Amino acid sequence: MVAPITVPRLANKTSPPQSANLPLPLTLDRNSADALHVQLAAQLRAGVTSGTLSAGVVLPGSRAMAGSLRVTRGVVTLALAELAAEGVLDAVSGVGMRVAAGAARPATPPTTAALPAWFVLPPPAPVDAGQPREGISFKPGVAASHLLDVRAWRAAWQAATRTAPSGDYGPAAGSWPLRVALAAFLTRSRGLSADPACLMVTAGSLSALGLIAGLLPRGSRVLFENPGYRAARQVLLDAGHTVIPVPIDENGLITDNLPPARLVVVTPSHQYPLGVRMGVPRRLALLEWARQHDALIVEDDYDGEFRYGAPPLPPLTVLDEEGGGRVLYLGTLSKVLTPAVRTGFVVAPTALLPALERARVLADAGHNTVTQDALTHFILGGHLDRHVRRARRWHGQQQAALASALAPLTEGNRPLAQLGGIEAGLHACLHLTPPLKAETVAAALAQRGVFVGTLSTFMMQPVPEETAQQALVLGYGGLTVAQIETGARAIVEVVRAESARLAP
Amino acid sequence: MVAPITVPRLANKTSPPQSANLPLPLTLDRNSADALHVQLAAQLRAGVTSGTLSAGVVLPGSRAMAGSLRVTRGVVTLALAELAAEGVLDAVSGVGMRVAAGAARPATPPTTAALPAWFVLPPPAPVDAGQPREGISFKPGVAASHLLDVRAWRAAWQAATRTAPSGDYGPAAGSWPLRVALAAFLTRSRGLSADPACLMVTAGSLSALGLIAGLLPRGSRVLFENPGYRAARQVLLDAGHTVIPVPIDENGLITDNLPPARLVVVTPSHQYPLGVRMGVPRRLALLEWARQHDALIVEDDYDGEFRYGAPPLPPLTVLDEEGGGRVLYLGTLSKVLTPAVRTGFVVAPTALLPALERARVLADAGHNTVTQDALTHFILGGHLDRHVRRARRWHGQQQAALASALAPLTEGNRPLAQLGGIEAGLHACLHLTPPLKAETVAAALAQRGVFVGTLSTFMMQPVPEETAQQALVLGYGGLTVAQIETGARAIVEVVRAESARLAP
Repeated sequence: MVAPITVPRLANKTSPPQSANLPLPLTLDRNSADALHVQLAAQLRAGVTSGTLSAGVVLPGSRAMAGSLRVTRGVVTLALAELAAEGVLDAVSGVGMRVAAGAARPATPPTTAALPAWFVLPPPAPVDAGQPREGISFKPGVAASHLLDVRAWRAAWQAATRTAPSGDYGPAAGSWPLRVALAAFLTRSRGLSADPACLMVTAGSLSALGLIAGLLPRGSRVLFENPGYRAARQVLLDAGHTVIPVPIDENGLITDNLPPARLVVVTPSHQYPLGVRMGVPRRLALLEWARQHDALIVEDDYDGEFRYGAPPLPPLTVLDEEGGGRVLYLGTLSKVLTPAVRTGFVVAPTALLPALERARVLADAGHNTVTQDALTHFILGGHLDRHVRRARRWHGQQQAALASALAPLTEGNRPLAQLGGIEAGLHACLHLTPPLKAETVAAALAQRGVFVGTLSTFMMQPVPEETAQQALVLGYGGLTVAQIETGARAIVEVVRAESARLAP
Repeated sequence: MVAPITVPRLANKTSPPQSANLPLPLTLDRNSADALHVQLAAQLRAGVTSGTLSAGVVLPGSRAMAGSLRVTRGVVTLALAELAAEGVLDAVSGVGMRVAAGAARPATPPTTAALPAWFVLPPPAPVDAGQPREGISFKPGVAASHLLDVRAWRAAWQAATRTAPSGDYGPAAGSWPLRVALAAFLTRSRGLSADPACLMVTAGSLSALGLIAGLLPRGSRVLFENPGYRAARQVLLDAGHTVIPVPIDENGLITDNLPPARLVVVTPSHQYPLGVRMGVPRRLALLEWARQHDALIVEDDYDGEFRYGAPPLPPLTVLDEEGGGRVLYLGTLSKVLTPAVRTGFVVAPTALLPALERARVLADAGHNTVTQDALTHFILGGHLDRHVRRARRWHGQQQAALASALAPLTEGNRPLAQLGGIEAGLHACLHLTPPLKAETVAAALAQRGVFVGTLSTFMMQPVPEETAQQALVLGYGGLTVAQIETGARAIVEVVRAESARLAP
């Protein structure tokens, strides 16, 4: 093992983190015939060409390097400039000097050829791109985390890191204080009085669904909303189940003549992506179906805290309390707080808890305990409730801005579009009047730097163009009111232009 | 939604967190005929019996409650005392007043009867009990997290929470700065120069293995060490694969006549649980087997950083660099830092990365970004390296204490036992000389409050008692030197007594 250069913690708090410890020894000899900066450049260059410093590695700042090498900063600057000129390093604005892609020998040789013949690369996961594109992206599922009270946030993590963490694993169902705090939050926010013993902390809704999918015998039939949450459907398919699409109308999942199945997965508060709310008769019918067919129900309430005007309806799990124990309720902090903490929960029938805990142990041995402690402090300090109130106001403004900016399309005698699912949540659906086509409109918008989803991509199988519902899926949670207005104006212009083009 | 009581952040930083927001409205009427404390008690009691305040919920402190209700503290104290007397609340020392288990109506009715007929509760996950038992527990896998430099630890989390977290999801493979930092750490600590682009952040080794298991066609044959890591084997079985046991000797996995398979899972640095090291010829033979049978190798290096004297051998993934791309190297921070952060990594052949990323997206949409930022700061500040050096010294003392306290059994002409796997890691195996039986010794030790594992529980199938290797598995990472000495003395006494009992 070589002695690493150890550089003190960076003084500039806002700069991105850098590799303070370089994985190679740097020793400068003041008695050498070579100037110090030449020696330094030679050693760094050798580190890069030998592959020890891999492509993409960011070097420590010149000040830090100079400090630990006990040379003037000029020596380091000269050496780095030389290497940048040679193409060994890239100067990246706001980051610093980075080992260039071509200069480093790849640490591992390209290995495609050696991959097993039996290995089949699966198609990519059906999710919206993780990184925002330039322009205005109406991407669903982005939360208003920038509204967070950063002082309270930091204080919660400070409280959680006041002592050394445990050397042992925590309970797989989550820490008891967090389970209590989440159960109480659920009662306050959704009127769902959950026993903390029935609430298990999860790494978000998708993770919870994965644990639940493992409880069913392989090859089980699962009913799933169509259009619906594509990644969730893929989780069920990957678990080896048969997924049966069920259509949606303005009252949510159509419960007439549901076929038998072991599980149904629904988003009754705010259907994803149509945004409609499942009516109470449909909810009761679904519970009755579950009783008849001995099935379980997953109620994914991913953004149920955000409603603007329209009252919330009782969750299925509340309606089920008399009948007993068919509903697994999924909640998440990703929308009401931030996806950064990867924390959600499932409220499950008592008897299913041991099986879910077992699945969590084998999935990843339980939840990050530092995060759990910090969240407990944050929630018990009342900060989550305050944040939700603040976020609700903010999202209400976004929602009003979207509705009003799209009014030129949705109002009047012969509207070019209808806005659905706008009463709740962080996204809405703009249904285009025939013969407008969503894909054409989306493509024209992308040309203008405005990115929208189309409903057809949420369908479980391709639908013939003639019969396909034509709608844009507009997530607005991550945009400012000004961005929403700019984006919506573009939508209005593009839809009008397209309509004029199609007019006889 | 009811208006919650909002209580300011607790002033006493060391008290456990409490439910500052009670999920029910409390309104006290100064003009009522009833005294204030009677009104308060009645409302809290109603909250409990109605199930709104669930069993186990901790009430806010009397001072905080009095503050938010604007009454004297005496009013609250009287009301709480009354409810404690009625059995509605329990006073828990160091915690406060908690809703008693029997008084609250269960929020969800007992539902075992309503569970689907097709649901089969799987057997519990094969892991050591999560919670330490009273006495001295030689439990494997516990890290020396108490040695952590708490100031540096807290500073890293502070740096990570200086700004609001993102409202969007991060990259599924992990944050680039953390991947760079972990790759550099790996080079420093294990001589493995990994390209950060081939390193993916995971939620620990078990989680990484789960992602890898999903890459194989269902029903694949997987070779697995016997005895071995039981939870990992269960992950493979749950994924639908066929697990084939391969015996271990003092040089690790026996590579003669390995049957064909798509995957082999090994712990070459420090076999779990025997503690032996896989020799270089065996390592090369395993790589050759993988080439012949078009197979992949999982190299689980869970505690490879801790070696006492015996030199580390090159990881399989380093030996493989010429042949190319058959090894997936699993590392974890659970042993070198703490399991609390649930962070590990996999270094994989480039071509497998997209498939692993896809699996991670569908498992839980990626890693907690606050934790990633904090770990990046911690590692780049040099604190992980410092902690590993400190932990290595500490574990070296533990290891020496164990070896020396067990010397009365392992030395001399006719030793009663042999200590294996003591040169590295955080556990060792005490092989008992026939006719001593590990289960008998372990049971006698448990009587004395000393808890040890037995090798037979790590076997993949029951072995007839006559031929079973008799050994105790002794994890010492979580014990003090004094506890190790006390525990080892008990082991010496029990083994001697048992040997005397068995003597003709």
